[in-house]
Amino acid sequence: MHLETSPLVPVLRTDSGSSKVLLRPRTSQEVAHILRYCHERNLAVSPQGGNTGMVGGSTPVFDEIIVSTALMNQIVSFHNVSGVLVCQAGCVLEELSRYVEERGFVVPLDLGAKGSCHIGGNVATNAGGLRFLRYGSLRGTVLGLEVVLADGTILNCLTSLRKDNTGYDLKQLFIGSEGTLGVITAVSILCPPKPSAVNVAFLGCPGFAEVLQTFCTCRGMLGEILSAFEFMDAECMKLVGLHLHLACPVQESPFYVLIETSGSGAGHDAEKLSGFLEQVLGSGLVTDGTLATDQRRIKMLWALRERITEALSRDGYVYKYDLSLPLDRLYDLVSDLRARLGLHAKHVVGYGHLGDGNLHLNVTAEAFSPSLLGTLEPYVYEWTARQRGSVSAEHGLGFKKKDVLGYSKPPEALQLMQQLKALLDPKGILNPYKTLPTRT
Amino acid sequence: MHLETSPLVPVLRTDSGSSKVLLRPRTSQEVAHILRYCHERNLAVSPQGGNTGMVGGSTPVFDEIIVSTALMNQIVSFHNVSGVLVCQAGCVLEELSRYVEERGFVVPLDLGAKGSCHIGGNVATNAGGLRFLRYGSLRGTVLGLEVVLADGTILNCLTSLRKDNTGYDLKQLFIGSEGTLGVITAVSILCPPKPSAVNVAFLGCPGFAEVLQTFCTCRGMLGEILSAFEFMDAECMKLVGLHLHLACPVQESPFYVLIETSGSGAGHDAEKLSGFLEQVLGSGLVTDGTLATDQRRIKMLWALRERITEALSRDGYVYKYDLSLPLDRLYDLVSDLRARLGLHAKHVVGYGHLGDGNLHLNVTAEAFSPSLLGTLEPYVYEWTARQRGSVSAEHGLGFKKKDVLGYSKPPEALQLMQQLKALLDPKGILNPYKTLPTRT
Repeated sequence: MHLETSPLVPVLRTDSGSSKVLLRPRTSQEVAHILRYCHERNLAVSPQGGNTGMVGGSTPVFDEIIVSTALMNQIVSFHNVSGVLVCQAGCVLEELSRYVEERGFVVPLDLGAKGSCHIGGNVATNAGGLRFLRYGSLRGTVLGLEVVLADGTILNCLTSLRKDNTGYDLKQLFIGSEGTLGVITAVSILCPPKPSAVNVAFLGCPGFAEVLQTFCTCRGMLGEILSAFEFMDAECMKLVGLHLHLACPVQESPFYVLIETSGSGAGHDAEKLSGFLEQVLGSGLVTDGTLATDQRRIKMLWALRERITEALSRDGYVYKYDLSLPLDRLYDLVSDLRARLGLHAKHVVGYGHLGDGNLHLNVTAEAFSPSLLGTLEPYVYEWTARQRGSVSAEHGLGFKKKDVLGYSKPPEALQLMQQLKALLDPKGILNPYKTLPTRT
Repeated sequence: MHLETSPLVPVLRTDSGSSKVLLRPRTSQEVAHILRYCHERNLAVSPQGGNTGMVGGSTPVFDEIIVSTALMNQIVSFHNVSGVLVCQAGCVLEELSRYVEERGFVVPLDLGAKGSCHIGGNVATNAGGLRFLRYGSLRGTVLGLEVVLADGTILNCLTSLRKDNTGYDLKQLFIGSEGTLGVITAVSILCPPKPSAVNVAFLGCPGFAEVLQTFCTCRGMLGEILSAFEFMDAECMKLVGLHLHLACPVQESPFYVLIETSGSGAGHDAEKLSGFLEQVLGSGLVTDGTLATDQRRIKMLWALRERITEALSRDGYVYKYDLSLPLDRLYDLVSDLRARLGLHAKHVVGYGHLGDGNLHLNVTAEAFSPSLLGTLEPYVYEWTARQRGSVSAEHGLGFKKKDVLGYSKPPEALQLMQQLKALLDPKGILNPYKTLPTRT
């Protein structure tokens, strides 16, 4: 991009203080030009990927210039022995997924928004998702990043090496910092080999204690082939039935569990899974279950879990919480709130990545109400803090949750975060009003 | 620790500028006292764990006060459902390993120095080791840290949560920063369930191309049960035979491979492994192999690989390099150097964690010689930089390698690292002369 001739120039030359501006650079050099320009003129910038975040991390608050990664959607390289994929930040997750699957690998990240989210946004959010249990955090699977700093400096840490202990691991600063410390322009990520056998079991459990015991049994008996352990309560099932007309595939139960296995030997995996099912059905941990091995039915079972968000949004105004809690207390907050809210809420539901200790707690109501919000907050955050949990497990803080950081981090940590922000973005032009609490 | 009454007081009161001092605090509060004292008086500190590092990261260079973690060896908690272990930084890795194995879990880190290295030192180094291929980096498995900052502030990020996206992930700053940004005093680490079946195969390969093809075949056929893929060349085998009297368990070959599987079904794993062996023996990728399933024989095979360092140290002066390289060029540097050095070296050997792209290149000679060093360096670093490799894959930079950082990182990264150091340790009292290059 040359600033003189590019179609971006007119907008760069407008008075950004009075109008909303969207820029769509194609290269990291273009991002560098934009940031250098904005830095010199104290113009605030809001980096934006697929705009699928849950906490308003990518939406401008006042007059920030949006820097979208939409046109930075090129795959740079893929190595078919190491499985290392290097691509621009604007690649859509589902497209990357298709690309590497055709080559016998999988992206170690999968989530409901895959059809529109950008890998750069995923990394900036440190997204968790459905494969976290198996492949772990992006902090381990992201091998390198290219980042443009606030002043337009391009920081090239786009290595493809599995191991590199030369100095401080700078890329970690940008993973999960929601565009407040730099703009991620390219990502190098390690893709594991595609499992040749995938099975999904959908089970009904009589209580949450049984869900936990099923998890322990499952981890012991399925071991290394376990790739997901998700749960949802009866209210979730009711809502996906009501709003999306999806049928419950097993007997009605207070809780449902979705277990996925991914392995390299179909026969072995099926044997392990049937041994496990025999055990949990025999011992009464599970009252009913169904098994899917073909792609179509696997998708159908996953849809019950993945489309809960959609069903909720059709139910009314949704109050959303994404919490990490100790496993044995994970569901207590849902029951507690249900009793506390009574008829003030339409539905209080709990579901999520049980294997990672991650609860998605959602409350629906006919419309937004300050009084209902007042009953929910800070109650939910205080409850979580008492359990030493996290008030944002995987969604980040963005604009909506930035002021609750203190429930999960001590003042010394907040202070160091503010110092890092001041070091990397002294003028505060990068995604302002996000992630860190408003200074009082 | 009360500074007034503690046995540490006399040494703290000496003129540390003129004497070597070793302090052994028992708690993070004591570490905080020490650092506050040193910070006020501009006294340099060198944190020390088990003193097993390879790059002089924990040895004082001039008159630094050594702060040893030796007495900070308490296990704080272990949760037998989640597998989260919280312990003080001075716990010896092997003791932690024994502790969690008795409870059905394993520490996700294992390395040759396990008998003396401290977990705090492991984390400060971002140690890789023998289980990296299976459980990934400490950046994913370490859930929380307690760190004392340069001015004595205790930063408590000792969470036990699998997922936590509240603000910047500060612990990442300290993982792998070799005590130059803070002193790690406690660690929270996620331990995976202990695999019920472990098998080891030791194979001979006719060439390095066959080693690589064996790796690809192995990854495809063993999939999720593969837990280690190590290699060593014929020179390594010669040295462990010569100096340690260990016998080669297979036909003499140019290369040897050690494969470990860890799974939850002994029968399934054995079946997968025998299918794999049949394939590689039949296709000529492997010329001879042996299999171990009992603990004694597994240990014996692992000793051939783990004791190479010891054999090398008995061979003479050792020039050590720990490199990340693209797999297809990994061994070229060894052959190249062997030709280049000719009779100037006793032995030029290559071995390491092939599955992670990590080569340990070692050269032995009767004694240290500046001319041999001049032939090796910067040649080895330049060669590695041309392949866009890492000049320190897992050992860190410490004192010995700090000036080679620039071969693997661009100037913009170096500058940001210096800024981080200045932010976190403005007086430069924490492990000076380590990790970052000498300013010129």
